[in-house]
Amino acid sequence: MSIVTLLTDFGTADGYVGEVKGVLASLAPRVQVVDIAHDVEAHDIEGARLALARYWRRFPEGTVHVVVVDPGVGGGRAALAVVSEGRYLVGPDNGVLSPALLHGDARWVSLDVPASAAPTFHGRDVFAPAAAQLALGAPIESLGASLDSPVIRRTPEATRRGDGGVQGEVITVDRFGNAVTNLLALRGGEVELDGLTLQVRRTYADAAPGEPTALVGSSGLVEIAVRDGSAAALLGLRRGSGVVLRAPR
Amino acid sequence: MSIVTLLTDFGTADGYVGEVKGVLASLAPRVQVVDIAHDVEAHDIEGARLALARYWRRFPEGTVHVVVVDPGVGGGRAALAVVSEGRYLVGPDNGVLSPALLHGDARWVSLDVPASAAPTFHGRDVFAPAAAQLALGAPIESLGASLDSPVIRRTPEATRRGDGGVQGEVITVDRFGNAVTNLLALRGGEVELDGLTLQVRRTYADAAPGEPTALVGSSGLVEIAVRDGSAAALLGLRRGSGVVLRAPR
Amino acid sequence: MSIVTLLTDFGTADGYVGEVKGVLASLAPRVQVVDIAHDVEAHDIEGARLALARYWRRFPEGTVHVVVVDPGVGGGRAALAVVSEGRYLVGPDNGVLSPALLHGDARWVSLDVPASAAPTFHGRDVFAPAAAQLALGAPIESLGASLDSPVIRRTPEATRRGDGGVQGEVITVDRFGNAVTNLLALRGGEVELDGLTLQVRRTYADAAPGEPTALVGSSGLVEIAVRDGSAAALLGLRRGSGVVLRAPR
Repeated sequence: MSIVTLLTDFGTADGYVGEVKGVLASLAPRVQVVDIAHDVEAHDIEGARLALARYWRRFPEGTVHVVVVDPGVGGGRAALAVVSEGRYLVGPDNGVLSPALLHGDARWVSLDVPASAAPTFHGRDVFAPAAAQLALGAPIESLGASLDSPVIRRTPEATRRGDGGVQGEVITVDRFGNAVTNLLALRGGEVELDGLTLQVRRTYADAAPGEPTALVGSSGLVEIAVRDGSAAALLGLRRGSGVVLRAPR
Repeated sequence: MSIVTLLTDFGTADGYVGEVKGVLASLAPRVQVVDIAHDVEAHDIEGARLALARYWRRFPEGTVHVVVVDPGVGGGRAALAVVSEGRYLVGPDNGVLSPALLHGDARWVSLDVPASAAPTFHGRDVFAPAAAQLALGAPIESLGASLDSPVIRRTPEATRRGDGGVQGEVITVDRFGNAVTNLLALRGGEVELDGLTLQVRRTYADAAPGEPTALVGSSGLVEIAVRDGSAAALLGLRRGSGVVLRAPR
Repeated sequence: MSIVTLLTDFGTADGYVGEVKGVLASLAPRVQVVDIAHDVEAHDIEGARLALARYWRRFPEGTVHVVVVDPGVGGGRAALAVVSEGRYLVGPDNGVLSPALLHGDARWVSLDVPASAAPTFHGRDVFAPAAAQLALGAPIESLGASLDSPVIRRTPEATRRGDGGVQGEVITVDRFGNAVTNLLALRGGEVELDGLTLQVRRTYADAAPGEPTALVGSSGLVEIAVRDGSAAALLGLRRGSGVVLRAPR
């Protein structure tokens, strides 16, 4: 039984998720639908891209990942299906599928959009039907035509500074108020942000309650956290806030 | 494998959804349970009714839809099971199941309420067991007695005005702040609300960022939207706000 | 097909739930994953413990319940697998699994933590793999070593007062603003709180709209509720607020 996962900004109070699941259940009744999250901030392509980066390869080969965060729906943007590392991905061509597109083996097509598709709801009328087809084994090339250059979004790169430090930034803040940076972890180093210097520790529990700390997060990047609290709230961190990493002395 | 869907206002922080799913898994282990949404505003029968209208017929025949938004639980209201268009629906008799009840082929019964049912949690003790029975193939008539007139809620009807316009209103606001009206879409017309006149466009992307617009939503009704923003917040729209539709000149 | 349930405080906007589900789908592809809730308040061990108490035995024997509310992750706390009443439970040793640990037949082990596990994300690297093993039939003893005294959290006990009443307290507030107490229900009694005296009624519908009332909740405990409103907001109730129960005169 193959799997279709759903990551959207549809929220969990309306019937939109239900419509998408109804289409999947009708077209591919034996497929297992797995919710990733539906409360991605409305129109937050970047947040969805970073979430997708975390999970898409953790599912078995053959899985179809549907990602619908789609502020440009009905406009000129293409609709994509991608295959990479044996997983399939379906979503708008706005960079949200970049984690898969950036892999060397990635192939993709621009999905055909039927004339009957509602111009405000491609999740239901374009992406869900395409996902059902892929889950049922349709070759990706049967779903559309080739497309030259899909939109790619990249995590901003950290840069080497004149003083030997590495200049990075916060790329996302999670539900716990942990601020994830684009700095590759360096055990024993320290980070500077806005007047504070924090040692990079192993985990939350190595800090005192309420104390800000830096640590190596579960995706291998430096995070700023406050034990039993919110680093984002306490330190005023948000996407784009600057953070400098320094090697151990 | 048949499907049972769940739409509730139980939220996603407590154990109530878990109790309902545990009952379903125990009584009908081979049934697939599909979450529609659990963050319907507490006691918002109208919001749940409109959500249900979107998805109930998109699932395959044989699907059982459970809807529990039930402020009157334990009081005099009946508990319903409905069959319509080959789908089953289970929920309180407060109008939330109207989308199915209004179909010509609908049949329904008043569910038996066992003496052991907690008077505050029919979701667990009445609706989930009934849904399990239906998913396992029990005939609807075996679950209760006939009921003359279930409660019906209808979307308010738009009315023709003396000046040739159609007087409608906002019936729901979605997570994106789009205000869905009861006006049947008219390509090329325009809508008036509170001093503003907006052309009915095809999709969000036809407006400039931050600009209010009207468009034909994915359920065929006129919506008021703001590209990359919230029409409800910007224009002060909410359920009941008046909107007038005018044909193209 | 066995079931793995998930109760976490990961929220529904990030990729964390997706990572856990990806691990489960990869290690135990035929297992059915069931969401209980992911919006438990961050680090609210007590809220998760009370939620778990509601649903863990409602699922069939063989079910594996994963509970990850884990502020001490990566520190000295053990990781647990428990079997009790034929159900399996996996989660941190911080008291969240107490509902199962307190059963006479409970057996448990301290899960082995692989060196490769991220010290901030045992949900993905320790609990999900252990749950997959259990769902596939591995004996619990194969997953770790014995542990003497897991952390136990108990619902605070109500106490008999000199004046014949029973002194209790609010143990949790649900999404509807109902305040659940630790008082065993007494049909016909009344409760006192902060100057108010409320009769214990059967259900919400026995009160007038907007009126505070006490009733026997669906877990057999006295709840304070406001019909069509929030008792917590109206009466300023929260976890720990005192409530006195008096027998019928």
